[in-house]
Amino acid sequence: MQAIIAGRKPVMEALRAGTNIEKIVFLLGVQGTVIEEIRLTAQRSKVPVSQASRQEFRELASDATTQGVVAIVRDVKAFVGLDEIVQRAESKGEKPLILLLDGIEDPQNLGALVRTAECAGVHGVVIPKHHAASVTSAVVRASAGATEHMAMAEVTNIVTTLDELKERGFWTAGVALEGDIPYTAFDYTTPAAIVVGNEGKGIRRLVREHCDRLVRIPMYGAIESLNASVAGALVMYEAAKQRHV
Amino acid sequence: MQAIIAGRKPVMEALRAGTNIEKIVFLLGVQGTVIEEIRLTAQRSKVPVSQASRQEFRELASDATTQGVVAIVRDVKAFVGLDEIVQRAESKGEKPLILLLDGIEDPQNLGALVRTAECAGVHGVVIPKHHAASVTSAVVRASAGATEHMAMAEVTNIVTTLDELKERGFWTAGVALEGDIPYTAFDYTTPAAIVVGNEGKGIRRLVREHCDRLVRIPMYGAIESLNASVAGALVMYEAAKQRHV
Repeated sequence: MQAIIAGRKPVMEALRAGTNIEKIVFLLGVQGTVIEEIRLTAQRSKVPVSQASRQEFRELASDATTQGVVAIVRDVKAFVGLDEIVQRAESKGEKPLILLLDGIEDPQNLGALVRTAECAGVHGVVIPKHHAASVTSAVVRASAGATEHMAMAEVTNIVTTLDELKERGFWTAGVALEGDIPYTAFDYTTPAAIVVGNEGKGIRRLVREHCDRLVRIPMYGAIESLNASVAGALVMYEAAKQRHV
Repeated sequence: MQAIIAGRKPVMEALRAGTNIEKIVFLLGVQGTVIEEIRLTAQRSKVPVSQASRQEFRELASDATTQGVVAIVRDVKAFVGLDEIVQRAESKGEKPLILLLDGIEDPQNLGALVRTAECAGVHGVVIPKHHAASVTSAVVRASAGATEHMAMAEVTNIVTTLDELKERGFWTAGVALEGDIPYTAFDYTTPAAIVVGNEGKGIRRLVREHCDRLVRIPMYGAIESLNASVAGALVMYEAAKQRHV
């Protein structure tokens, strides 16, 4: 699931090329001009760095020649476009059902949402390219491998995507505490997109405004809100239920 | 949320008294007869131990006199009995709805389940005393504080509890892949208990056999099962829906 780039020059080059690096790990105490250059470039590129003892480092890099530094590269997940998601649904004779994630940050939540989406018969998951969890190996693990089955699209602008979906005849439901209808009152049997927002902040205002309806999950206790992955699961399974009567 | 016991003698005494210790932390390099005794006793009692640098240790123990060792004590959550759970429901004029967890191991899942239970109007959560996650501070955090609101009972034998509930007029639904009816077909408007099993192994055979019905969540994809906390959430919210028509 994980690729390792080992060695000072290869790591420096990967950094320069903008490779999707999850983390750079230095052998404890390693020094040198190139090491310092890697450290600085990583900092500027906001790539996390850490240090590992000799033993941890050996486990990470196995028998590669590391020169005291390795980069852990993010899982290269082949993303698809909206077209392919729609086609996947049509090839099954189903109306497309899409999960749109507006800024999920926790890899556990992203993984759980993709897993539930796969189980609920969702045809594709759309995630933003920036300011959100990406499909790292932690996400793959948390999804119980569902990321391998799920068509996933990465987009730069969720609002544009919502508008594009609406033009294609989709109805869009944003899951929000202040939703004006219960989540069970929305009709998910049309081509539909379910929008789930950030763990803390929910769906951003502009994205909310571009949803056809905001749906709310009733709360019967003292706690204010559900976990984002649970809220998403409830709405996805409501859609599944409506579609499989 | 966390209590700290600091100092060699206090920690040793807490260990001897069987205090619910989450972890014992030694200052890196600390030595001595009592330290060795603590280490051995912890090992025998299966209490995890770890070491911390001077700085980490200071953050942990703040200004307490530690003599190089502290014990992190589990959250002391006051557990209630089944009677109190039933009374809480009745005081609201509601028929009791209970979540029974047969061996959830992951604190994240336990926390998420308690959080969802609280939101769904469940009156109490029953967890086993052994071979399962206990209510540690990690669970409290993962529950978003729901553990503070939720009536929780800790029992030694889930099967006995199921039988007791049935004698009290409860109907019990076990969530299982091999369930014979969809989870939406069970009637949760009676006094009801929802049983969720272990993340990997599901509900144990004997517990399954003591459930009135096994309910299944339909799966529409390639993945075999949902996350335990998602499965529990779907069933709890189905119950909530039936109860709030």
